[in-house]
Amino acid sequence: MVGSSNRVESFPDATDLEASQPFPTPSLTPLQVHSVSVPQEKTTFQSLKQRLGEVFFPDDPLHQFKNKSFLRKMVLGLHYFFPIFQWGSDYHLKLLKSDAISGVTIASLAIPQGISYAKLAGLPPIVGLYSSFVPPLIYSVLGSSRDLAVGPVSIASLVMGSMLRDVVSPDKEPTLYLQLAFTATFFAGVFQASLGLLRLGFIVDFLSKPTLTGFMGGAAIIVSLQQLKGLLGIVHFTTKMGFIPVMQSVFENRTEWAWQTVVMGLSFLAFLLIARHISLRRPKLFWVSAAAPLTSVILSTILSFVFKAPNHGIKTIGHLQEGVNPPSVNMLDFGGPYLNLAIKTGIITGILALTEGMAVGRTFASLKNYQIDGNKEMVAIGAMNMAGSCASCYVTTGSFSRSAVNYNAGCKTALSNIVMASAVLFTMLFLMPLFYYTPNVMLSAIIIAAVIGLIDVRGAFLLWKVDKFDFLACMSAFFGVLLISVQMGLAIAVGISLFKILIHATRPNTVVLGNVPGTNSYRNLAQYREAVRVPSFLILGIESPIYFTNSMYLQERILRWVREEEDRITKSNESSLKCIVLDMAAVTAVDTNGMEALSELKKTLDKRSLDLVLVNPVGEVAQKLSRSGTWELFGSEHIYMTVGEAIAAASYKCQT
Amino acid sequence: MVGSSNRVESFPDATDLEASQPFPTPSLTPLQVHSVSVPQEKTTFQSLKQRLGEVFFPDDPLHQFKNKSFLRKMVLGLHYFFPIFQWGSDYHLKLLKSDAISGVTIASLAIPQGISYAKLAGLPPIVGLYSSFVPPLIYSVLGSSRDLAVGPVSIASLVMGSMLRDVVSPDKEPTLYLQLAFTATFFAGVFQASLGLLRLGFIVDFLSKPTLTGFMGGAAIIVSLQQLKGLLGIVHFTTKMGFIPVMQSVFENRTEWAWQTVVMGLSFLAFLLIARHISLRRPKLFWVSAAAPLTSVILSTILSFVFKAPNHGIKTIGHLQEGVNPPSVNMLDFGGPYLNLAIKTGIITGILALTEGMAVGRTFASLKNYQIDGNKEMVAIGAMNMAGSCASCYVTTGSFSRSAVNYNAGCKTALSNIVMASAVLFTMLFLMPLFYYTPNVMLSAIIIAAVIGLIDVRGAFLLWKVDKFDFLACMSAFFGVLLISVQMGLAIAVGISLFKILIHATRPNTVVLGNVPGTNSYRNLAQYREAVRVPSFLILGIESPIYFTNSMYLQERILRWVREEEDRITKSNESSLKCIVLDMAAVTAVDTNGMEALSELKKTLDKRSLDLVLVNPVGEVAQKLSRSGTWELFGSEHIYMTVGEAIAAASYKCQT
Repeated sequence: MVGSSNRVESFPDATDLEASQPFPTPSLTPLQVHSVSVPQEKTTFQSLKQRLGEVFFPDDPLHQFKNKSFLRKMVLGLHYFFPIFQWGSDYHLKLLKSDAISGVTIASLAIPQGISYAKLAGLPPIVGLYSSFVPPLIYSVLGSSRDLAVGPVSIASLVMGSMLRDVVSPDKEPTLYLQLAFTATFFAGVFQASLGLLRLGFIVDFLSKPTLTGFMGGAAIIVSLQQLKGLLGIVHFTTKMGFIPVMQSVFENRTEWAWQTVVMGLSFLAFLLIARHISLRRPKLFWVSAAAPLTSVILSTILSFVFKAPNHGIKTIGHLQEGVNPPSVNMLDFGGPYLNLAIKTGIITGILALTEGMAVGRTFASLKNYQIDGNKEMVAIGAMNMAGSCASCYVTTGSFSRSAVNYNAGCKTALSNIVMASAVLFTMLFLMPLFYYTPNVMLSAIIIAAVIGLIDVRGAFLLWKVDKFDFLACMSAFFGVLLISVQMGLAIAVGISLFKILIHATRPNTVVLGNVPGTNSYRNLAQYREAVRVPSFLILGIESPIYFTNSMYLQERILRWVREEEDRITKSNESSLKCIVLDMAAVTAVDTNGMEALSELKKTLDKRSLDLVLVNPVGEVAQKLSRSGTWELFGSEHIYMTVGEAIAAASYKCQT
Repeated sequence: MVGSSNRVESFPDATDLEASQPFPTPSLTPLQVHSVSVPQEKTTFQSLKQRLGEVFFPDDPLHQFKNKSFLRKMVLGLHYFFPIFQWGSDYHLKLLKSDAISGVTIASLAIPQGISYAKLAGLPPIVGLYSSFVPPLIYSVLGSSRDLAVGPVSIASLVMGSMLRDVVSPDKEPTLYLQLAFTATFFAGVFQASLGLLRLGFIVDFLSKPTLTGFMGGAAIIVSLQQLKGLLGIVHFTTKMGFIPVMQSVFENRTEWAWQTVVMGLSFLAFLLIARHISLRRPKLFWVSAAAPLTSVILSTILSFVFKAPNHGIKTIGHLQEGVNPPSVNMLDFGGPYLNLAIKTGIITGILALTEGMAVGRTFASLKNYQIDGNKEMVAIGAMNMAGSCASCYVTTGSFSRSAVNYNAGCKTALSNIVMASAVLFTMLFLMPLFYYTPNVMLSAIIIAAVIGLIDVRGAFLLWKVDKFDFLACMSAFFGVLLISVQMGLAIAVGISLFKILIHATRPNTVVLGNVPGTNSYRNLAQYREAVRVPSFLILGIESPIYFTNSMYLQERILRWVREEEDRITKSNESSLKCIVLDMAAVTAVDTNGMEALSELKKTLDKRSLDLVLVNPVGEVAQKLSRSGTWELFGSEHIYMTVGEAIAAASYKCQT
């Protein structure tokens, strides 16, 4: 193998020399130059195995099974696949008290929110309650988060409603709409579980935080605008979601605004927002905002009943069917003209639901200092949606707002979800008639109060301050969602985020390095103002892998650096340029185009009697250079381990 | 600004200590630690300007205009936009001789190839000659390459034919087909020139070399298979391009095979291939392969005339219209149902033509050691296609094979293209009747002999040896073109190439570093087997920018490294882990997700009483860390310039 032996040559001692002098001038004491090693050659199978392991099993999920007895492995396996056995076996009464309190608290939030979000998705309110019963039960068996409160969420509801309503009207064809919603939910579950099983969980990471900030802000505004229908009591409302058509519809139908509804809606909205504000200021008072929605519902229902609200133009929920979730397997439709729509809706709502669920799970896990296995979590969320789609539930996941309440209420395990589900069950069995007089405007107020927290102005401002490109991604998601459509906004933002990575790979930085006086370190002259150039040397740091996307650019850019350096030298009358040193520390990968560019560059510079020296090629790069013959083209005397050694050796060569 | 001053603290002297000891043990002599600088803060406008300059003007095209008089600037500007004035002003008779010889040589190749490639594109043979007349003239005025031989090329002809034939039959609707071809050519020109004017030339670099190797190999086989029609004399041939339908068609129509045609075709094909082989072996005999096609055409025409070939079932070209290019502006159709097709075809053939032209131009420029301005070259190629589409020409570019002949024949300037165009003009005016008896099978033989050189088996093997992923991209392009379609093959290969970049950004390497004995360098333990771990320290090199795509992965992967290191320490009874050092030299960019991941990681490790230290954050990263507050979270005592200083300082802190 080329360059794999440790070579010691009779150059002046580099280390002595570098440590004691600002930049090296050659002396004639012997110098030890450390040759650059090439990592041990692996077989194709070995490197493929390692690579795939790194891509799909970065967390090494089986490490806990190592060196264990068979029985222990079985128990661990059971714990692994059904976390309920893990925490269930250590469960005791003290935990139950905490879980019961938090469970009841989130139920008081889940019931009004469930009904509201179902309406947001264009579904009958009762489906929201169904969805707060079966999925939490399944999650409590399979899920590994202790804090996640499972149920319908605003974003996924909005997107499902927006995508399905584009094609089918929930008012004109309610059965078809319901069928599509359940089928889409089934596909969302299949997609989520497959991502987890195929260990492709990293796809969720492609929604970057700036994108999500913008997306959620835009979605929150879209959702709030939709609530103007309920809040103003408008009857003939547009079915479109965009900012412009909704505002048009609101003002064109001014005559339909009902002052009774407006007064009631605004009062309760103010109440909810104040409650929210109190809880935000003092996290110990979490129960204020947690109890506010249920309190408002009860209050508004009583008011509505006492004043016979329906007679004054205030619409109410009306009759709700009592009983537990009816089976809906027969409503799943895997054929027909709308299959594509169901699959598309399923995938998009599925990935949004996953993103929210994973982010919530990780946030609270890190607060309590435990870890969540992302892929396993996806399987759990997928399983609960698949099961849910057969029991009249639509897409569910871990909710931001309710999980925060759950955490603040002191939940200890996923049992709080079971408590919540029981409370929902009790409601569905016995309390449904109580909702008859609940005004619709109340649900609108609850939704607005819930989503308004998703608008993160401070986060957007921080993005502007720190990273303009991230801010751009954030704003395109925001305005894309607001002005075009939810899906397009998302697509644009993801596209911009990925484009940023590609542009970085297409136009990487190259920086001129100089010696930091008193050390043997060479650093960017633009960053370290104390660093000084080494006469006759041009030291360039390449800050990117060398790929086909940038090989041509780098080749031309380096030649431009050389030209500019020569101009500078001519002007300032310094000693002429002799050697170009490429610091490859940040060149973490190279492809065939990249190696060709290096060879081309060497040939071009050779013709101009300039030396080209490579410094510190890292593992994979060293291996490829050696395999492709580029190493031999350069020769070991043009490849060094450190910039200092390269300079010492080159200076020594010139002198002798 | 945080950390921008040079801080000197009373730690033991790091440089002395590192240079003399294998790894540092703290001593109590004062140590100078160099603080990490943050580059000077720039305004948004400044950094935007610099960034855009780097993206769009990396070559600084205006540098030659600096500090020149107005008149000189005008002259330079004329030279810049019309290179013919640059080389034209120094032109002399000796150059003319070389250019005339090479011009005539490439004309003898261009005439038969022009006719053949036009047939490949489904166009009348005469269009191939037209296209070898106008575009070379325009290129010779605008183009900056001295070696490019301009005219129709096989790949672009194939793709244009394949895309247009999918929708319109050239036999049944010849006028519409011709209209579409000219319109597509116009759009190709517009697209090419716009890329150049908008300085987006780097888009061409997105076709990596492995992709092109596979693509051209596949296209060469597709093209050769199409020639079986002419070579076997089949009348009822499929209009499809794929490997399978063509082979089916060939064998289903066995009865139509004409032995006279086959014998003639194979003999001349053998002759052409032998001539090609001779020229490849001895580049000085370039004229053997250069003259072979014209010789074969003359010979076969004479044979066909003497033996009255058409009577024996050998089809000939027949009557060709004499005269120069008729105008075709009236045939450009910017409306109607096929506009989309014309635009799509234009863009795809345009980018393929550009890729070939740019690659050829760059190759020969580097052989003769001059530089080509990519963006200017695109404008030239675009202009010649736009003009060509108005003068009955279809897509043209610099051809690989003819440019090589041009170079070998000793061309000096673009004048050889003018000579070639004149020879073509002469042919069109006076020699057309001579082609009446030229057998079609001859054209097939010429095409096969020309494209067979595009199959680069050795190149593919080298890819396999050096880079398996590149080989995969190459093979998918090859089989995609062969089995699906030309466009799909290209799309798949580009997709795979970009996916490779994204996967690198999603699952970057993290490596454990150790001290290389006798130096203060820290390198990958897997690469440098002499490197040794530093007790109580885990030094990790992060080999990628930290982006949203990998921030979660890196966070978890680093925690896994810590867990594994602790397991190893427990087993080998070493001193316990105290500090994790992240070498950020290769972290050339960071986004908001990345900074959050670093903060999260620090908090997690703090809870486990482990120190997290950052080393050598580079310019942009240092700036963002400082702007976002992450720097303050870490504190200057957790950010160092070198690994050595970080270790010395941390060890010193532990001891005191």
